[in-house]
Amino acid sequence: MGKLYAVGFGPGGYEHMTAKAIDVIKNADVITGYTTYVEMLKKFFPDKEYVATPMTKEMDRCRMAVDLAAEGKTVAMVSSGDSGIYGMAGILLEIANEKKADVEIETVPGVTAASAAASVLGAPLMHDFTIISLSDLMTPYSLIMKRVDCAGQGDFIVCLYNPKSKKRADYVEKAAEILMKYRDGKTPVGIVRHAGREEESSYITTLDAVKDAPIDMFSIVIVGNSNTYVRDGKMITPRGYEDKYGFANVE
Amino acid sequence: MGKLYAVGFGPGGYEHMTAKAIDVIKNADVITGYTTYVEMLKKFFPDKEYVATPMTKEMDRCRMAVDLAAEGKTVAMVSSGDSGIYGMAGILLEIANEKKADVEIETVPGVTAASAAASVLGAPLMHDFTIISLSDLMTPYSLIMKRVDCAGQGDFIVCLYNPKSKKRADYVEKAAEILMKYRDGKTPVGIVRHAGREEESSYITTLDAVKDAPIDMFSIVIVGNSNTYVRDGKMITPRGYEDKYGFANVE
Repeated sequence: MGKLYAVGFGPGGYEHMTAKAIDVIKNADVITGYTTYVEMLKKFFPDKEYVATPMTKEMDRCRMAVDLAAEGKTVAMVSSGDSGIYGMAGILLEIANEKKADVEIETVPGVTAASAAASVLGAPLMHDFTIISLSDLMTPYSLIMKRVDCAGQGDFIVCLYNPKSKKRADYVEKAAEILMKYRDGKTPVGIVRHAGREEESSYITTLDAVKDAPIDMFSIVIVGNSNTYVRDGKMITPRGYEDKYGFANVE
Repeated sequence: MGKLYAVGFGPGGYEHMTAKAIDVIKNADVITGYTTYVEMLKKFFPDKEYVATPMTKEMDRCRMAVDLAAEGKTVAMVSSGDSGIYGMAGILLEIANEKKADVEIETVPGVTAASAAASVLGAPLMHDFTIISLSDLMTPYSLIMKRVDCAGQGDFIVCLYNPKSKKRADYVEKAAEILMKYRDGKTPVGIVRHAGREEESSYITTLDAVKDAPIDMFSIVIVGNSNTYVRDGKMITPRGYEDKYGFANVE
């Protein structure tokens, strides 16, 4: 029986890969993934066999990965972040089921982009949060914005994945408008571009100024909850609601 | 200037630690943290200097860590999962600010429990989700359950951290009742105990049977969205809403 690993290699820097992700990639017969991810890994593991396909060919890539594993090869399907969050893990399981392939599929968890971005901004995720993708490729726009509204009602910290593309230039601004129904326009918003990679950069602004912020498809946007504040350039959400610094009841 | 690292070492197994977390712990002068976490790390790094304090002394622990770093030591404040999610990162920044300590604080992101639990269950986090802690130590019960309600309205996958304690024996059941206002009682629910550790075990049930499920303080509970299903023992959430398997628009 072949073995297929869905490997999340984290934000992109070698130092953020888990020991298991490194081990699985080093020992795989074939490493496959979206071209951009494969190019990242080639820098760290130059001597491996890679099969890269464009983003739009991901279904073909998953079928190929399942077929290679069914032939007895050890295959690593790689993606950035955690392959279990908006990743390939689900599709691989589904295709293996469809094909009744004799393949064992294992997900190797990684550091997701929200964790990487938060570590750059300070400590914005000290309380309950939501992760919402603004990509409308497979999710109706109305549901995406309904979720933003629900996150606003619940005073959740909001992490926006895939915040912007040419076709979706104004979705972040729309999300900010919805959140401002529930929280102050001066609520801190952190933006991290290429979190955990060499080209990493970050920017802290406010909800009412998000429309002017430098956001692109490589960015993660984290909107604070009603208690989040900025101090010495760090975005901090208190752990609790019973006092501003969340220090109650923990002594 | 001293250096203080807030290090998330992931679920608990060495293989899930990032290369950076391993490197920082190996090179730290002092490693400090909650006793349980320190005991976990001693198995992997037996020759280091550790200072452990009980959970209830975490403020003292953080102040001590800041003081040690201010003295010029390199200190690693360790916690499981990602120290940037319900972790010590925020308190350390706050205390360093209060004390005006000459300390550089860096958060080393790790694999959070939701990612570890999801990798065991299959692929439940393929779409938008919320992470909600059911601990009412610093958050009003009413707000916790309001968030569960908002998550239900938005059809978010729901990850429950700190799901149960002796004092909060019925919170998971209450949360399930709220979610059943919005989704079917047969919605899959995955429970992973000690995710990513030697003692790991998992269990898949349904919302209407959660009250009878084996859940404790070492468990993570993941409630599927309206599309989540179980197949061959794996909990899978399709990536999209446009067709059952989320395969639309990606070919």
